[in-house]
Amino acid sequence: MNSLVISMAEPLQPEKFRQRIDQELDALDFSKAPQELYQPIKYVLSNGGKRARPVLVMMACELFTDDTEIALPAAMAVEIFHNFTLVHDDIMDKAPLRRNKATVHEKWGNNVAILSGDAMIVKAYEQIARCRTEYLNRVFTVFNDVAIQVCEGQQMDMNFQECSQVSIGEYVHMIELKTATLLAGSLKIGAILGGATDEEADLLGAFGKNIGIAFQLQDDILDVYGEEGKFGKQVGGDIVAGKKTFLMLKAMELADDGDKQVLSSVVSDEGADSLLQVATARKIFDKLHVKEIALEEVHKYHNTGMAELENLKADPAQKVLLKHMAEALLNREI
Amino acid sequence: MNSLVISMAEPLQPEKFRQRIDQELDALDFSKAPQELYQPIKYVLSNGGKRARPVLVMMACELFTDDTEIALPAAMAVEIFHNFTLVHDDIMDKAPLRRNKATVHEKWGNNVAILSGDAMIVKAYEQIARCRTEYLNRVFTVFNDVAIQVCEGQQMDMNFQECSQVSIGEYVHMIELKTATLLAGSLKIGAILGGATDEEADLLGAFGKNIGIAFQLQDDILDVYGEEGKFGKQVGGDIVAGKKTFLMLKAMELADDGDKQVLSSVVSDEGADSLLQVATARKIFDKLHVKEIALEEVHKYHNTGMAELENLKADPAQKVLLKHMAEALLNREI
Repeated sequence: MNSLVISMAEPLQPEKFRQRIDQELDALDFSKAPQELYQPIKYVLSNGGKRARPVLVMMACELFTDDTEIALPAAMAVEIFHNFTLVHDDIMDKAPLRRNKATVHEKWGNNVAILSGDAMIVKAYEQIARCRTEYLNRVFTVFNDVAIQVCEGQQMDMNFQECSQVSIGEYVHMIELKTATLLAGSLKIGAILGGATDEEADLLGAFGKNIGIAFQLQDDILDVYGEEGKFGKQVGGDIVAGKKTFLMLKAMELADDGDKQVLSSVVSDEGADSLLQVATARKIFDKLHVKEIALEEVHKYHNTGMAELENLKADPAQKVLLKHMAEALLNREI
Repeated sequence: MNSLVISMAEPLQPEKFRQRIDQELDALDFSKAPQELYQPIKYVLSNGGKRARPVLVMMACELFTDDTEIALPAAMAVEIFHNFTLVHDDIMDKAPLRRNKATVHEKWGNNVAILSGDAMIVKAYEQIARCRTEYLNRVFTVFNDVAIQVCEGQQMDMNFQECSQVSIGEYVHMIELKTATLLAGSLKIGAILGGATDEEADLLGAFGKNIGIAFQLQDDILDVYGEEGKFGKQVGGDIVAGKKTFLMLKAMELADDGDKQVLSSVVSDEGADSLLQVATARKIFDKLHVKEIALEEVHKYHNTGMAELENLKADPAQKVLLKHMAEALLNREI
């Protein structure tokens, strides 16, 4: 699967930043009362995530200054906010597991999950408030814009479950809001804190947005064509859940009436044999070459993102690190 | 009921501020997509609330400057945040009605209510971000402190439902966090934006905290002894819901073993005849004079609050307006 999208990059782990972020997350004090509120937050934040978003904050900052510590509060904010979205999304999706551990609502009930999630939003903003005063206005504004767009994306995602007709354009707009915006915002915020101009931050944001869309489309492909177990998800999970992914929407668009009817029944038929559902959908996907079409889209967004990065005037060696990070993200090495 | 707590104050309506806040809330643009996210926010914010908290922001600001417009974004933030807490609390309490209108989760489902509430937190912070840069750090910090304490208070409130033993001290701490902190924070933030020192803002905060506790204790009394319909709630609603209010906890503390058992069964007996439950509890409350004890507490916190306000060096005429506002709050004239 590694060669699926792009030539194999030197596996680069921005391990230094990841460790620094983990250290800082560990240092957050959640020992205070009421423990029913704080224990779930501690549980979620120690879930062994890859910390891709906060690492991007730090890396973007490093493009403009060696003093990356100044970006640490914002990196924390982004990571805490991301984890809040997982807690609330999991309630809405009724998901029992996240990274092979019980979800918060499964472990403590919906009410605790709602409230702990709320508190995590505030905890994220507490970190934003720690950002250097001279950059606070700009960082705060970007963070607010990102946060509201993530909510909009999640609402669109929920709407799509109910909606019979979803266009590819609408779908890409949804994943842009729900997924790509936070990656873009992480880079923008890191850049601002490093001393970047708005123009430089925007270029990095555009890089992040395109990489983010490519990342989510890749996720859609891996759901159907990934190796079982490798990506921590059941193969075909999206098909079984009736999700309208890029592959499903493209297949619906290209299929003849007969196949369209079969796909519709797969999407709506919750009680059916899940292995059979996956096999049925995949057969139609294969026939219509939707994997290849999706891969082309991944390439397109990947290339657009890289071109945006090229436009940024910065130390080429530093830019290579970001390129590698983007490729590692797409190849799920991070 | 007007003379229940304190001598009847000249009914003062800080109508000018209320209208200004309503105008500004109406001007918020919620017409954008996805409407499933924004419609509930618009619905909640146009619910005809009394806007007590944002009015307090403006009044506190007016103690220090005539240019109260600078406090408007913060006033909005406080009101939007308060309404977010109502949306999420109503999910947790499974409340069907709020101010005689269907609650958001009742009208649109839990998922929309969760997500719209989340978006309201972000919308509140968007307003904080609009605060004058020179005061942003201080306002942001107070707002974060308040927001996390409100979450803590709500969690404690939920814990108390499950907990057989709750002390009066724990209860007062809970209502301080859940209710009084936001009133206190509103005053502090308004003061800061008006140009107050931290000390002055803290005095106003202490005034607000004590008035807030008195307000909630008064609410507990009105639930049992208020006039039906006048306060928009069913009389005895807290008893029927098995809530451990000040009156119930004090009665439990003072009751003999027999009455204690009766009260315990009232609190835990969800299926019982609600009129009978209310009458039973009220009879024991009357015997133990818990209403009078609660009223003494209301007076105590009210007086402490007023003393804090006395300590503030400000235009006496302006301070009188705040006193009247506090009394109007307690008498439910606002």
